[in-house]
Amino acid sequence: MTYHTDTIVALSTPPGLGAVGVIRISGTHAIEIVNAVFKGKNLLQQASHTLHFGKIVHEQQIIDEVVVGLFLAPTSYTKENIAEISCHGSPYILQKVIEILIKNGARSAKPGEFTMRAFLNGRFDLSQAEAVADLIAADSEIAHKTAMQQMRGGFSLEIKRLREELIHFASLIELELDFGEEDVEFADRMALSATIEQLLRTIHALSASFKVGNVIKKGVPVVLAGRPNAGKSTLLNALVNEERAIVSNIAGTTRDIIEVPINIDGLTFRLIDTAGIREASDTIEAIGVKKTFEQIENAAILLYIFDANDLSELEVLEDINKLNNSKLTIVLVANKCDLCQEHTLGTLENSINKLTKNAFPIFEISAHKQQNIHQLKAYLTSALGINSYLNDNTLVTNIRHFEALNNCYLSLEKVSLALQNKITTDFLAQDIRHALSALSEITGSITTEDLLDNIFSKFCIGK
Amino acid sequence: MTYHTDTIVALSTPPGLGAVGVIRISGTHAIEIVNAVFKGKNLLQQASHTLHFGKIVHEQQIIDEVVVGLFLAPTSYTKENIAEISCHGSPYILQKVIEILIKNGARSAKPGEFTMRAFLNGRFDLSQAEAVADLIAADSEIAHKTAMQQMRGGFSLEIKRLREELIHFASLIELELDFGEEDVEFADRMALSATIEQLLRTIHALSASFKVGNVIKKGVPVVLAGRPNAGKSTLLNALVNEERAIVSNIAGTTRDIIEVPINIDGLTFRLIDTAGIREASDTIEAIGVKKTFEQIENAAILLYIFDANDLSELEVLEDINKLNNSKLTIVLVANKCDLCQEHTLGTLENSINKLTKNAFPIFEISAHKQQNIHQLKAYLTSALGINSYLNDNTLVTNIRHFEALNNCYLSLEKVSLALQNKITTDFLAQDIRHALSALSEITGSITTEDLLDNIFSKFCIGK
Repeated sequence: MTYHTDTIVALSTPPGLGAVGVIRISGTHAIEIVNAVFKGKNLLQQASHTLHFGKIVHEQQIIDEVVVGLFLAPTSYTKENIAEISCHGSPYILQKVIEILIKNGARSAKPGEFTMRAFLNGRFDLSQAEAVADLIAADSEIAHKTAMQQMRGGFSLEIKRLREELIHFASLIELELDFGEEDVEFADRMALSATIEQLLRTIHALSASFKVGNVIKKGVPVVLAGRPNAGKSTLLNALVNEERAIVSNIAGTTRDIIEVPINIDGLTFRLIDTAGIREASDTIEAIGVKKTFEQIENAAILLYIFDANDLSELEVLEDINKLNNSKLTIVLVANKCDLCQEHTLGTLENSINKLTKNAFPIFEISAHKQQNIHQLKAYLTSALGINSYLNDNTLVTNIRHFEALNNCYLSLEKVSLALQNKITTDFLAQDIRHALSALSEITGSITTEDLLDNIFSKFCIGK
Repeated sequence: MTYHTDTIVALSTPPGLGAVGVIRISGTHAIEIVNAVFKGKNLLQQASHTLHFGKIVHEQQIIDEVVVGLFLAPTSYTKENIAEISCHGSPYILQKVIEILIKNGARSAKPGEFTMRAFLNGRFDLSQAEAVADLIAADSEIAHKTAMQQMRGGFSLEIKRLREELIHFASLIELELDFGEEDVEFADRMALSATIEQLLRTIHALSASFKVGNVIKKGVPVVLAGRPNAGKSTLLNALVNEERAIVSNIAGTTRDIIEVPINIDGLTFRLIDTAGIREASDTIEAIGVKKTFEQIENAAILLYIFDANDLSELEVLEDINKLNNSKLTIVLVANKCDLCQEHTLGTLENSINKLTKNAFPIFEISAHKQQNIHQLKAYLTSALGINSYLNDNTLVTNIRHFEALNNCYLSLEKVSLALQNKITTDFLAQDIRHALSALSEITGSITTEDLLDNIFSKFCIGK
């Protein structure tokens, strides 16, 4: 690829005022370009992995006093020559230095272009490159651990194993088909079926882990819904206060949805407060209720809050059940239990069972008095069975990988069906190629330029 | 000072997501503390100014893959051992690494503490240290140039010269007073008077440069005022559009004041739009007008905009004149000249002279049609006489220095007066000591711990 030899430059640290800002420049001429504007030692005569104090000078004017770090090819992140210039963290200075480097022959880097070069030069495979972006975005212990595992090649290893099995399977198919024409007995076919069933199970398990992997990466969406005044916001505050999270407003188009991130046991939950659900008396309110249902559809967990003293509030559960969302875990939260006449969880459960057809977990709490909040929280961390995944290396967190695995699965299903129906070799071969190709896309053994541009454009500038 | 030997750590790059975040750690044990959590080469055996790839590991868990830069005492910014850890720019990772370093014996650095140590260890004097913060905050070519000159010691040199002159003067005083008691002729006294007058002139010129130095640093405040519908906002947009500046809202308490920074010829101007001035019909409006006058009092330049077709709009100029603000440059902007009956600038000036007692520069423009905007802009850059200061090394930009110079000036005035009135030696000696002490405070030859804490607390964390 031709764009892969010129010298690129970008600010690598976040924008804004700071003590230090780092400009990264990579390419064959990186050191020469910096040296041309650097007053200090001759950088062209210095060893790799060394630091040099000096001045950036342009048109006889000192722009900044800097420290330049040198990484000579191939012992650098991109495997090209890299210079990193630590400037004073002034947006004016950083902009100016980048301008000067561009005037001297560098080009502004596209987002993720340094990491793209690292991939193209064989530093790591594509799924590892993608994990770099995930690592930077990780905001909880578990998301960080998952991204770090992927960056260090855990996931790639799993895909490699799958690919080897698939190639092994392909060779078995060839064998079976050879024997097939000679009309031999079915022992080989049974081995084939066993192999493909095993492959399908493994890929299915990987795909299924995306549900967990995705919420680990993005935070588990937990919607709080219920009738007006059921105590949704009080519960949200009760859940959050204990964790001292920062409350943030995410503006909706018609009505503000309050979304609050909290961290429980190293995992991020996004608590989403909604408009109270009631018979919409006007258009604006109808829009609010519609938005609430949209939030519920995208949630992993629904906390349905109701007044324990007024079970009629549970009627709306029927509407929620109609959503028929198999991804959704519904939890009933009986609030205001401190005000209740004495009753046991048993009698409450009985009453609820009469009202709803399904059985849901129920928590009796008082949001106002912070009673039983801790138990509800403990349930949240266990509800998705995330803990059981955590010691597993093979968590899918990336939608591109999820889709590739699904494509692989669909192709293999066709192969399985074809085997059962004794379809001709040509079709089998094609489907196996598709399955292999889908797996190869994950690690980037097979890629297109468009795919690469799309992946790396989601990176920070300077990485 | 005891706090000056322990090891301090801070994030040196701006907060937020980025490709890279740099953690700086300085102190006797800096390298040891990093080495304890670093998996890679033994950092204790490495040379200064070298870079090392490795992993930060805590409790058997890899926190990040990093590059550590080493600067061994005394060849570092603080003249202590420094390690700089380049991590992935994830707030989660950066926080975690800092936590781990603190667990291993480092302490969270206070704002500016690295630069304070650089000062205390004799890397530069106090005014140079202060220039580091100014350099980071500089957002225009001229502010940058001024801060760079100060950081590189231009201003310190000027203060040193003044101090030497003052010490020379002190010795002349001693001489004169010795002779005084012996009742010799007045030749020495005339030399004394000449010296002190020269000193007073120099210090006065330096103090006076603060007016320019301060607006260079903070941007020149330019208030746009006038009757409602005179075209203030249109003029603001006309001035800004050409420069493609970003419009920002600065919330006032009772009414939003629109403030827009624009850069003309390397200098930042802060254009401040105000409420239209008219007879306040209610309390809220009266507050708006009051705020407009407050803005005018703090401005360097007032652009008074009026409809060239309605000179009655100039009546309010009398109120503005009453402010009696000698720092303020008032400029009249006759707007809507494209709609005027044919008239010359001369006839407009005559009409205005009849209405106002003072003579102001006048510009005939059309904000709507962008006529003569360029001339107005050119005038802005020349109005404060900033260009004449720019080749001068001795621009005072810091209010602390300005106040110290004023204190020095007041003490020297007393000395001058005392000489004229033949006051006794004791009083003279005391005032000269005060004058010298005021100058010494600028470069930090004499400081108190409180003063240092106050100066460095205004820095970024990590510098």
